[in-house]
Amino acid sequence: MSTDLLDDLRRILGEAQVLPGGDLPAHERDWRRRWQGRALAVVRPGSTEEVAAVVRACVRHGVSLVPQGGNTGLVGGGVPDASGRQIVLSLQRMNRVRRLDPANLTLTVDAGMVLQQVQQAAADAGLLFPLSLAAEGSCTIGGNLSTNAGGTQVLRYGNARELCLGLEVVTADGEIWTDLSGLRKDNTGYDLRDLYIGAEGTLGVITAATLELHPQPAASLTALCATGSLRQCVALLMLARQRLGADLTGFEVMNRFSLDLVRRHFPQLPQPLAPCPWTVLIECTDGDGEARLRERAEGLLGQALEDGLIDDAALAESLAQSHGLWHVRESISLAQSEEGLNIKHDISLPVSAIPDFSADTEAALQQRFPGVRLVNFGHLGDGNLHFNVQCPEGGDAPSFLREHEHAINALVYDAVQACGGSISAEHGIGELKREELPRRKSAVALALMRRIKQALDPQGVMNPGRVL
Amino acid sequence: MSTDLLDDLRRILGEAQVLPGGDLPAHERDWRRRWQGRALAVVRPGSTEEVAAVVRACVRHGVSLVPQGGNTGLVGGGVPDASGRQIVLSLQRMNRVRRLDPANLTLTVDAGMVLQQVQQAAADAGLLFPLSLAAEGSCTIGGNLSTNAGGTQVLRYGNARELCLGLEVVTADGEIWTDLSGLRKDNTGYDLRDLYIGAEGTLGVITAATLELHPQPAASLTALCATGSLRQCVALLMLARQRLGADLTGFEVMNRFSLDLVRRHFPQLPQPLAPCPWTVLIECTDGDGEARLRERAEGLLGQALEDGLIDDAALAESLAQSHGLWHVRESISLAQSEEGLNIKHDISLPVSAIPDFSADTEAALQQRFPGVRLVNFGHLGDGNLHFNVQCPEGGDAPSFLREHEHAINALVYDAVQACGGSISAEHGIGELKREELPRRKSAVALALMRRIKQALDPQGVMNPGRVL
Repeated sequence: MSTDLLDDLRRILGEAQVLPGGDLPAHERDWRRRWQGRALAVVRPGSTEEVAAVVRACVRHGVSLVPQGGNTGLVGGGVPDASGRQIVLSLQRMNRVRRLDPANLTLTVDAGMVLQQVQQAAADAGLLFPLSLAAEGSCTIGGNLSTNAGGTQVLRYGNARELCLGLEVVTADGEIWTDLSGLRKDNTGYDLRDLYIGAEGTLGVITAATLELHPQPAASLTALCATGSLRQCVALLMLARQRLGADLTGFEVMNRFSLDLVRRHFPQLPQPLAPCPWTVLIECTDGDGEARLRERAEGLLGQALEDGLIDDAALAESLAQSHGLWHVRESISLAQSEEGLNIKHDISLPVSAIPDFSADTEAALQQRFPGVRLVNFGHLGDGNLHFNVQCPEGGDAPSFLREHEHAINALVYDAVQACGGSISAEHGIGELKREELPRRKSAVALALMRRIKQALDPQGVMNPGRVL
Repeated sequence: MSTDLLDDLRRILGEAQVLPGGDLPAHERDWRRRWQGRALAVVRPGSTEEVAAVVRACVRHGVSLVPQGGNTGLVGGGVPDASGRQIVLSLQRMNRVRRLDPANLTLTVDAGMVLQQVQQAAADAGLLFPLSLAAEGSCTIGGNLSTNAGGTQVLRYGNARELCLGLEVVTADGEIWTDLSGLRKDNTGYDLRDLYIGAEGTLGVITAATLELHPQPAASLTALCATGSLRQCVALLMLARQRLGADLTGFEVMNRFSLDLVRRHFPQLPQPLAPCPWTVLIECTDGDGEARLRERAEGLLGQALEDGLIDDAALAESLAQSHGLWHVRESISLAQSEEGLNIKHDISLPVSAIPDFSADTEAALQQRFPGVRLVNFGHLGDGNLHFNVQCPEGGDAPSFLREHEHAINALVYDAVQACGGSISAEHGIGELKREELPRRKSAVALALMRRIKQALDPQGVMNPGRVL
């Protein structure tokens, strides 16, 4: 039967685009090497019609499919299981711009286009596609949409979902649903688009998307602020929102240990402020230009100093300095890896709940696991913390994780749940959090999700065993 | 069986909250008097638990339900059919604020709260809930969400969907799904929220929502511009977006006949500009204050004059003048009613397609129905036109509609479809466009929608015969 399927797939795609599985680490293993699978084959369709034909062939043979973009996911949702019986459907050959419509501020692209290339296509037209995240050089827009990616500008522009006006999808039956007109308003029935967005390839395959572009702001500016507590950070956020409105595009926080790790492992990176309990990185933009923006940012920082919300501040004097400050922020994950294995939590909470949650949960962790070190940073403006736990200084990370990872996850997720938070803010569920989900999400919601899965993928061919 | 149900409902809600149907025009007829139904009873639950108990009782008795908010809909989706066998579930008694969280910029309210009261609750906290539309004095937030309402600030703040962070829903089984934490990022499975939003009560009953608030802008300003063509309006929109970014909050267009009708029927309203082919109403805001905003608006209008995009402009000198200009815009529908019966089309298109669509479709209408008058106005910034057709001057409107309404709809919707547009931008499908939908939407999309309906409301108790 599998041989028959491979023959069918070769007929559909040609020999060259059906790669036998077993020795394709770029497709069968995730980049962090946490999940090593084995595929029956990796197929590389070049068109939506080919994707549809592949899905229909898989349905006929009762073989399941794993859609894959840039394979940069963090939850194991894009690699095959170990059975050797799944087909990995790589979208990477579908990587062209289909249509740019500047007067509608939309860009329609194939799902396999790399995010950075999407950003570039917008920039080439003097416009902005604001989705931005660490993996942008290799992740694909189809993967971004399937996981409803977040990133650093969500505060201003929203998640991937809010930046997508329409999709083309191959359904689990191998039919093609197209909605790429780029409408900003369309109330003709159920919101299929948002159902496929964030479904992690379990309901169908996103093959193209119409994305919403924005005007390029005339200027952007980065500032760093030293504060004494997360409570002050939240107050600063409110002040910044009030004064800058939609011109506040980023509001990141980093606890002292996060920046200590960057200092330790990347001493060459600029850290203009003296160590302090919490550092805020603010990014803002202005349609008028640099001078005006600088004046506004200085006004904000001046008031924050006056109100006692911050103790010190540094304003980038150039684009290069801005990049330097962001570089520090983006080096936290890497510095943490250099320090050794750790336990990551990508959580979200109501912004108002974050100071108490953080203080209480850190105290509870310290009490139970004395000396434990918390790498706590993230997108405060979106209520999203990367609340990561590192073993005590000098401890043996692998054995600490073996012994305590479950207990630490339980403690953190219990605290998240008590605040009405989410155990996956922007990374998705995939394989990693699938077993945790039923403990953390309401039974009613899960039952509704299962009914939807059953309705749209009755044969279970689309990425089975992920999410649900 | 019906008597048993009424007994059950009385036990659940008390005698006073079960009103026998047949003489309840406020609930059984829409406000435009287009649909006159007859309910078995109108029930008025006071809590989510009561809503759930009502739904379960209806399921037990095999009787269907029509959820109803302010009964201000335009497509007949909120009134019962004529069978006398449906239960109208009015949410109007559930009208309280549940929780205001200023630091999270969220407001949680019962679904039956009137939109204006929601706006007021936000304003009382110094914040903004930006959803705004003509019926705001009587429509409810639950109805706004069930129809994914648009309104006048979509360009800046999005539709109702984009202003909602979470819902409480009574499912078609009478279970309660609650997601009112106010998270801005949550990637833990399928997007149930956006499925219930815009479903027009056919999948469940929205009983509460957590809404996203925004800072109040320090100043807002309204301007009117005279232009020669829709093409110039689109160019002006691009310029305004470029210069004002997110501070451009409204961009409305009105053709000459729209404003002529307002002049004729409401001569006391201010129309500061001489009649011209197309008038643009621009609204913009600024976080800094009035003086700064006026400078920016004058800069925009100056450049637009210089670039030849507009022929004349007027800037409101006061809040009262701003309101006056908006009052003209909002009086178009009423002026049109005063002029007589007409055929309404609430359509959306890619912004870039609007100039050609408008010119070509008006020409085709003129050729086929000489003398026909087009009331063409709407939210150009969102690609949303109210493309309404009035019989020739002096003609008999009722007989014109009887003879030509179908042909005119077909002509307009064919043209919309050819541009990839939508036959319902912000009003929904309801009863009015249910038969049109299968002709205008892809069969694949409709089949997916039917599967979802079947999965989430297998017994068909929720507002049957609407949308699908």
